[in-house]
Amino acid sequence: MMKQNLDSIQKPGSRYTAKGTLWIECDGRRCFGPGRAQLLTAIAGTGSINKAARQMGMSYKKAWNMVQELNSQFTEIMVITQPGGEGGGGSVLTPAAQELVSYHEAMRLRFQQFLALENELLND
Amino acid sequence: MMKQNLDSIQKPGSRYTAKGTLWIECDGRRCFGPGRAQLLTAIAGTGSINKAARQMGMSYKKAWNMVQELNSQFTEIMVITQPGGEGGGGSVLTPAAQELVSYHEAMRLRFQQFLALENELLND
Repeated sequence: MMKQNLDSIQKPGSRYTAKGTLWIECDGRRCFGPGRAQLLTAIAGTGSINKAARQMGMSYKKAWNMVQELNSQFTEIMVITQPGGEGGGGSVLTPAAQELVSYHEAMRLRFQQFLALENELLND
Repeated sequence: MMKQNLDSIQKPGSRYTAKGTLWIECDGRRCFGPGRAQLLTAIAGTGSINKAARQMGMSYKKAWNMVQELNSQFTEIMVITQPGGEGGGGSVLTPAAQELVSYHEAMRLRFQQFLALENELLND
C-alpha cells in the first residue's frame, strides 16, 4: 500500500507546501483571476484606472487594456470611466464588477481551504 | 444577498470554466508539479533521461538539471543513471520517485474534483 504522505522523503528541517493558482476562462481565454481582481479592487479604492495602475506597478495602458478585455468578456461593462480633465473624471465599478470581485473572493477562499487540506495531507 | 454564480453576466453561447495549477514547494521554491511529474513518468517509460527530454520537447540539459534539482530537494535520489556508452546505460526511477509520482497523481485527481465543483458553481 502506497503511503499517503511524503514524510519518508521529506528533508528534516525543510518546509513542504502545496501551492496553486486559480482563474476563470471564457472560451478558453483567461478572463478573470487574481490580477484582474486586484486591479478592480484598486480601481474601486482609488476611483481611477491610472492611480490603480500605479498602485499595482503596471502601466496605464496595460491596466486600460485589461479593463477593455474584461468588458468584452461578459455581458456587462465592468468599469465606467467619466470623462474629465485634470482633477475631473474618474472610474467606478459597475454592480457586475462588484459581483465578479465577490465571486472571485469566495472562490479564492474555497481554494485556500483546499490548499490547507492538501498541506495537512502533505505534512501530517 | 449576492448571487452565488455568474449567470447574470455570462455571455450566452460563451463557455466559462474554472482552471488552475497546483504544485509543491520546498522552502519556498517550486519542487514538484505537473512538469516534473511528466518528466519522471517519461523517464520511467523510456528508461532514459535523453529520450524522456526529447519526448517532452526539452533539451537534455534542462531535463538533467530538473532531475538534479529534484534529487537535492528530498532525502532520496529520484533517478539512478547507469553509466554506459552507445546503447548502454539508462536511467531508472527509485521507489522514492515512484512514491512522489503517485502522490502527485492523487493530488491532481483531488484538484480535478475541486475544479469540477467550481465549474458546477460557475455554470449551474
